This record gives sequence, structure tokens and C-alpha cells, in this order.
Amino acid sequence: MYHLEEIGEKAVLAKYALQTLSTDKKDQALNAVANAILARKQEILQANEKDWEIGENNGMNPGLLDRLKLSEERIEAMAEGLVQITKLQDPVGEIMDSFERPNGLLITKLRVPLGVIGIIYESRPNVTADAFGLCFKTGNAVILKGGKDAIHSNMAITAIIRETLDEEGINQDAVQLITDTDREVTNAFMKMDQYVDVLIPRGGAGLIRAVVENSTIPVIETGTGNCHIYIDEDADILKVIPIVMNAKTQRVGVCNACESLVIHENAAKKVLPSLGMALREKGVEIRGDKLVKSLIIGCVEATEEDYGTEYLDSIISIKTVPSIEKAIAHINRYSTGHSEAIITENKENARMFLKGVDSACVYVNASTRFTDGFEFGFGAEIGISTQKLHARGPMGLKELTTYKYEIVGKGQIRS
Amino acid sequence: MYHLEEIGEKAVLAKYALQTLSTDKKDQALNAVANAILARKQEILQANEKDWEIGENNGMNPGLLDRLKLSEERIEAMAEGLVQITKLQDPVGEIMDSFERPNGLLITKLRVPLGVIGIIYESRPNVTADAFGLCFKTGNAVILKGGKDAIHSNMAITAIIRETLDEEGINQDAVQLITDTDREVTNAFMKMDQYVDVLIPRGGAGLIRAVVENSTIPVIETGTGNCHIYIDEDADILKVIPIVMNAKTQRVGVCNACESLVIHENAAKKVLPSLGMALREKGVEIRGDKLVKSLIIGCVEATEEDYGTEYLDSIISIKTVPSIEKAIAHINRYSTGHSEAIITENKENARMFLKGVDSACVYVNASTRFTDGFEFGFGAEIGISTQKLHARGPMGLKELTTYKYEIVGKGQIRS
Repeated sequence: MYHLEEIGEKAVLAKYALQTLSTDKKDQALNAVANAILARKQEILQANEKDWEIGENNGMNPGLLDRLKLSEERIEAMAEGLVQITKLQDPVGEIMDSFERPNGLLITKLRVPLGVIGIIYESRPNVTADAFGLCFKTGNAVILKGGKDAIHSNMAITAIIRETLDEEGINQDAVQLITDTDREVTNAFMKMDQYVDVLIPRGGAGLIRAVVENSTIPVIETGTGNCHIYIDEDADILKVIPIVMNAKTQRVGVCNACESLVIHENAAKKVLPSLGMALREKGVEIRGDKLVKSLIIGCVEATEEDYGTEYLDSIISIKTVPSIEKAIAHINRYSTGHSEAIITENKENARMFLKGVDSACVYVNASTRFTDGFEFGFGAEIGISTQKLHARGPMGLKELTTYKYEIVGKGQIRS
Repeated sequence: MYHLEEIGEKAVLAKYALQTLSTDKKDQALNAVANAILARKQEILQANEKDWEIGENNGMNPGLLDRLKLSEERIEAMAEGLVQITKLQDPVGEIMDSFERPNGLLITKLRVPLGVIGIIYESRPNVTADAFGLCFKTGNAVILKGGKDAIHSNMAITAIIRETLDEEGINQDAVQLITDTDREVTNAFMKMDQYVDVLIPRGGAGLIRAVVENSTIPVIETGTGNCHIYIDEDADILKVIPIVMNAKTQRVGVCNACESLVIHENAAKKVLPSLGMALREKGVEIRGDKLVKSLIIGCVEATEEDYGTEYLDSIISIKTVPSIEKAIAHINRYSTGHSEAIITENKENARMFLKGVDSACVYVNASTRFTDGFEFGFGAEIGISTQKLHARGPMGLKELTTYKYEIVGKGQIRS
């Protein structure tokens, strides 16, 4: 089927070549690719126009069309992103540990590339350059499977990267694009554990679930965020509205946006009427339990399903609880393990929340919107992991590496 | 089906309880369990006898019967293993990183338990106590699914652990055993990603493959070791025989045993006749290519399949190569990524091998048998990871943890 095996074999060959590249050489190539993208902007725009026309003719919704659309500015941002990656420290080769055993064996644990990374994503052509940049800087070969609707844009961008790598004397299979966007091919790709070391889906909950269910390659789940803010009995009311409004309304379609509020019964009367007004002014639909309904005009009754939903939209669910313990239990039940915050002036409650909530990022008195590789100072981000294996929370360059043990002896044998 | 959901829900509740236990409390409970195992040795022996009788009547092979068999000494070793775990440092709570962002947010990255760990293993009842001990010390709840043939032994051991935990005032669902050993139940267990954070199969290649193919829970692949030793052109002949004999014959059924030799053509004539004799004296069957056959009497021709086989038996394959590059390529093609060694006095070749071989543990002039948590000084071992996500090589206590970010603010919002 298709030529997936060939793609896998080429990626493995490229992986060995990439592992030996110096940081300077990699940075030089990234700069060259950035320049080529700028120089060949028109090619990318033309390809993107083709995708856009097809999308429009197929009645694609405006939100998706916007994500698909490239402009001169967006292409410049793409190139700038690659230049930024050259400025980050290369984690490959870092000595993580080194020790001598009583028998004289010298053991060194050092950071190495993962090898071959597969990335399955939706129709966002900017991911193509970005994912290549992050994988390349960390010495990994990458196989990209982008959304069908962005195929022409992705082919144009990938072609520019590959030609530039070739000019730089680097194995161009450092990046390969799967151009057959049939579901069957995608499913077969997910089973290529013989060639691919890690598979990272970037996209909505449906895409991620499909990958988790079908992949035999180890997966890093990213980006599903049913994020909660808990307003404690001892919350500073002056902090509540700014934090909640920021987390809910600054950008509604992102994974670190707040989707659900949990509030102590004793704080509800004080906080909810004004908070409800602020949310409604910003056009946020409110779905709450009985107590919430009695305090916010226009609030509709929340269903069980609401509490488990990542809306990615101007909707918020609100649940009242009689205690912080119940708040933590509710959050652990419905959260996707991404980001949760408590607003409180009570140190003991803050501590209990930090310990008790089983999520990647747990906040005290701050917006959940800070869960982001750039905001954390990592300088880059391939995604936000919501699983516990390997990486949790914002994933920067280090999270695209693994380690190996080098053991040097003088003829030791085990007794 | 069965009551898997109930087991999952109980494990999640236990997980939250375990996360708050102090190291002292955990160590006290481990000691109590060790004492209870010693005190109730007879119960375990009786249960084991039942398993053994059934196994014998079913014509179980002697190797498997031996692994199934518990003696007073083996039970004492089991208890001693738990006592040893109390002496290891508790990794939970370790602050891995801590930094302040320009906006004043304080970010702390700290080590926390994984949560709920599932372990699927074969009919080795000693794994039951061992897996519990390692998971418990790291604050994880564990769900065990052992081999059908050891069910009575596993039930007896688990009952003793659970009763002791209860006496210690600890949620006894810290360990649960799936007692229905039907394949259907096992398959359903592998899909319980809603409850289980990580699944670790411990056993042969078939078991591991079944888990990789069916699980929706993130898996850590362990223990398949098609380990190679490469005898370089510049090998010290005095090191070759001791290292190869140790790696191949000290214990043939273990994952870090050598299964295949790769040898430079220029070393073959010097080394193979005497090495062949030594191997044959120890009863090792040799399968090699044409050159090997011409140098070792009784060597049979190796097939393509031989090079990819983890024998776990007194058989070795031998392949000659014209260069170290070909040796590395051969090893990367057939290896399972566990452990490989080079024997050489040439520093440049040693370096090339260390860098080029894509395995968890790469040795210079030492036996592959050292790939082991105890030999590495970790004090314990849940398995040897042959994948690249999360953990690679010997996994000790740290590898049974993940991390979370705690972020403390004063009302910060994202601009």
C-alpha cells in the first residue's frame, strides 16, 4: 500500500545521519530553510490558494478556513520561528549522569535524539515548518501526516525544506510528508512501530483518540484541555474576575483556556452575580447547577456531559461544591489532566489543591493560559502533553530526546 | 464483563490516598508485608502446590514449572526483596527544577507518582510481591494480571499484602489482582486508559507484542533482548573469550544474554576457531555464515531469521562483516535496542560504535550481562525498557514516577 515502508526505511537512514550532525551544522541548515521559505513565499502562497479554493468550494467552515489560510505575514512568522529555534540550546549530547561502579565500569547517561518522530496533524500548514524545525534541531527525522485540506501547502513547504537540506549536504529524508491522505494510509502509518519511535498527534480530541486507539507506536497525547478554575471560600475577590476572564475569554479556542469553574458554596453568593455579568458581557454562555442558576441570570442548567466537555468556545460550566475536597474530587474526575487553578488566600488550601489535583500544571492565583512552552521559558513548544509517560505539560526541545547508557569497561564480566 | 471497571475505580481512589503517604509510612508498611509473608509462608506454599499440581497434570514444561515453583527460600527472598526496597531513596517529592518567570510566576517541577500502573506478567509468582513493592514505594497503585498457571499463588500473596495494608491503615486497593485470567478480560484490561496511566508487560516477546498491539494505555516495552557483541579487527583476543562466554553462557534464558556475534573478517581467522571450541564445549549450538562455517567445525548455516531471533537458549548466531560500519548497520537492523557490546582496543572504533548503535545500553569491552538495575546501582529493577519514551534501559524507582508543575502566582494573567 502506497509506499509507507519505503518512507519508513528512508527515515531510519536519515535518523542515523542526523544523529551525527553538529549543532552548528543544524542551525546553519535551519537558517537556510528559513531564507528559502522567505525567498519562495509566492510558491507557498499559490499552493495555499489552491487548498483554500478547494476548501471554500467544499463549504469548509470559516474557522477551519482561517487556520488553513497563509498570508505573507504568516509565512514570515513561519521562517522567523525556524530562526528562533537556532537560538535555543541543543539538548543532544548533554551528559545527564556519569558514575563508576565498584567493578570499574564507567557508566555515562547521555541525551540522544528519539530517532524517528511521526506527527499527525490537522489542516494547519504552519505546523509543517514548525514540527520540522523542532525535530531537526533535536536530531530527529520526522514523518509528517498533515490534514487533507492543506495538502498542497504542505507539499510546497516540505519541498522547499527538502531541497534546501539537500543543498546543505544533509539527508533530505530528515523530513518526509505522507501525501496520500486516505484514512487507510493513516491507519497503516500508525502501525509502523518498526520504523517510528514516537507518534505525536496534534489536533482535536477526536484525532487524538483515533491515534491512541489505533497506534502501535508509542504515543504522546497532547492538547486536550478541559481546564478548571476552583474559586475557594477564601478567594480574594479582586483576583477572581481578572483571572477567570483571562482564562476563559482571552482566546476561547486554545487548550489552556478555562472550560469549567468550580466554586465553594460560601463564595458563590459573593462572587457569581458580578462574575456572571462580566462573562455574559463578553458573550459567554453559562451552564451551571441549581445554585448557580439562582445567582446568574440567564444561566442554563448544566448536564453531566457539560462538566466533561472541552468547549473550545464561548461557553463555561459552573459547579458549586461544599468543600475543597469535593472540588478536587470533581476536578480529578472531569479534567483531562492539562491545567487547573485555585484562587485562594488560604495557604493550606493552596497546598492541598497543588498536591491533590492530578494534572500536568496546577496553579495558585494565576490564569491557566500560562501553560505554554514559551510562557514557561522553554523557547519552543511541540505540544502540551496530557499523559504521564515521558513528558508532562509543555514540551520543548528536551522532551524530543531520550537517553542512552554508554558503558566503558576493561574486559569486565558478570560473576 | 467481570468487574474490571470496579477495579479501575478502586485503583484511582487508592492512587490519591497513596500520593499523600510519607516515606516512613510506606517503608513501615513494606516491612510489615515482608513479615506477614514470612509468617504466612505455609499458606503461600500450599497455594503454590496447587498451581504446581495443575501445571504438572497439564504437562507444563520443566522450565516453566521451575519458574512457577516457590520454596521456603524463594519466599524468604521475596520478603527480603521488600525489605531491600525500604532501604532505597523515595524519589517522590524530589524537586527537579524551580524557577521564577519575569512575570513573577514561581514554577516548580517536582517528581510525583505515575498514578495507577498495570502489570501483565507470566506465571512467576515472585513478580507479584516485587511489582507491588516497587509500585508502592513510589506511591503508585498497581493492578496485577499474572499468568493463569500461577493464579493460586498470586491470590495467596496478594491477600497477604492487602490484609497487611489494611492493618496498617492503608487503602488495600494499593494492590489488586485480576483473578479472571481469560484472554478477553486481559484484552479489556489493556483498554482501561481511563483508569490506568501506564501498562508494563513483563515476559516474552509474544506477550509484549500482544500488549503493544492491543493496549490503549501507554505501554513501556521491556525485556526483549536480541543482544549483539561485535568483535572488532582491533579486539584484544584475551578479552574476547571471557566476555563472549560470560554474555552467552552465564545464564542463557535472560534478556541481557548475548544472542549474536558480529565479527570483523580480519579477526575471524584469529578468533573463531578457539572461540568456537569454547562455545561448543559449553554445549552452545553455532549458526554462522559461510566464513564462520569454514572456521568452526559443526557450525550450521545461519538463516536470515537467525539474526533476528532472541534464542534464550544455548544457540548463538555469528555474522562476519568487512567493516565496523557494516557491523553497526547489521546490529541496528536486527537488534531489539537492548544491549550491544564492542570488543576493541581502537578508541576511534569504540567511539563510533557507542555513537552509532541505537540501543539502550552500549558497551565497550564488557559483557552485556551488566544491563540490570542492580548492576547499575539502582538497587531495584522493574524491567529493562527497550523503547525510547519515558525510560530506556534498566528501570529503577525513578522510572516509576512522572512530574508535575506547580505554579504559584499573585493574580497574574496572560497578556
